[in-house]
Amino acid sequence: MASSIRSNCRKIVAIGRNYADHIKELNNAAPKQPFFFLKPPSSILLPGQGPILRPSGVSLHYEVELGLVMGKGLRNLDPQDEETALSSIGGYLVSIDMTARNVQDEAKKKGLPWSIAKGFDTFLPVSSYIPKAKIPNPHKADLWLSLNDQLRQNDSTELMIFRIPRILSDISRVMSLEPGDIVLTGTPKGVGEVKTGDKLKAGIRVDGKDINEGAIDVT
Amino acid sequence: MASSIRSNCRKIVAIGRNYADHIKELNNAAPKQPFFFLKPPSSILLPGQGPILRPSGVSLHYEVELGLVMGKGLRNLDPQDEETALSSIGGYLVSIDMTARNVQDEAKKKGLPWSIAKGFDTFLPVSSYIPKAKIPNPHKADLWLSLNDQLRQNDSTELMIFRIPRILSDISRVMSLEPGDIVLTGTPKGVGEVKTGDKLKAGIRVDGKDINEGAIDVT
Ligand SMILES: [Mg+2]
Ligand SMILES: [Mg+2]
Ligand SMILES: [Mg+2]
Repeated sequence: MASSIRSNCRKIVAIGRNYADHIKELNNAAPKQPFFFLKPPSSILLPGQGPILRPSGVSLHYEVELGLVMGKGLRNLDPQDEETALSSIGGYLVSIDMTARNVQDEAKKKGLPWSIAKGFDTFLPVSSYIPKAKIPNPHKADLWLSLNDQLRQNDSTELMIFRIPRILSDISRVMSLEPGDIVLTGTPKGVGEVKTGDKLKAGIRVDGKDINEGAIDVT
Repeated sequence: MASSIRSNCRKIVAIGRNYADHIKELNNAAPKQPFFFLKPPSSILLPGQGPILRPSGVSLHYEVELGLVMGKGLRNLDPQDEETALSSIGGYLVSIDMTARNVQDEAKKKGLPWSIAKGFDTFLPVSSYIPKAKIPNPHKADLWLSLNDQLRQNDSTELMIFRIPRILSDISRVMSLEPGDIVLTGTPKGVGEVKTGDKLKAGIRVDGKDINEGAIDVT
């Protein structure tokens, strides 16, 4: 099942700046509407297939995110149509949106695309596929990430600035979503740098309990 | 065959600023190394499936480009290894990298990703698949585009700043290329705006003769 996450995926659309405290920590402006970027399917790192590759000269940062795996296609979704939005989700995964922060900062300064900073092979470690029923409300779960067993990110998905129906609407009005596509919903505060050999763990809790399928454990 | 261009494609990697005169016309800085961005496979518009969609408020520009359809995977290619580079190409296509220029200009100013400006549905009209043998030397062909039957772009691919082995090397050192992936090699001078109802035609000539499979005719 895990390998089908990668083989079924034709695009990964990632929302930027979707948790207020994370926007502050990077000194970014809060967006008036969701903005997003693409990561290539070739960046997916399946469970057990680590380590994360560290390109030389790169300052590598982690960003834990809730991923939506599309079960149905979506195009031009009405932002009010919460029912269609939620029913288009096939399942979930936990992911780490690895970012070459220095490359991204340079790109921002020059007005260049983010694709290189976000797109290296192994830059999207994912958990196993989480069946939809395990997360009854995707706006009510706790995402966490630890670095060398120290908790660094730990926040509720209810802190999302733009909620899932709005995100899916905005994306689908630009680019059609197809079954198997992955949508990353943004990262809470606490992002930081990873050094060679650092151990990353991440997961998601519902009602205070970790979901087995949502575990990431990667170096 | 045309529909398999889309169904086999898992990513589209597009090189920016690869013809000197096009860099001047947009007042851009010449890159010291190739940079690239992603377009989603959902942006592919197959022959006969037009028209191109014009999102409201968008200044829509055309950029004709030679596309490489990967026949083999590539990872960490040595830039000197011209033979592996060329043998990894499965075939070619002519494409128009449609761009929401005002959205892109805004993104550049704010240091935001280009994915929206480049990623709308129908923003990549393509020709049919061009068998590899029809373009014996991809650096010796003439790309052209006409707007309402007036020639607007018409230059030789020998004007590429970064040639194909270098492009494939740089991309493959960031993200693995997979069979079916499409690489867009940049646009020559002459880009411009398209208004509703405008007729775009494009093609590629080898030894002064248009290749049938390379024709684009879209509104
Ligand atoms: Mg993609
Ligand atoms: Mg992120
Ligand atoms: Mg282009």
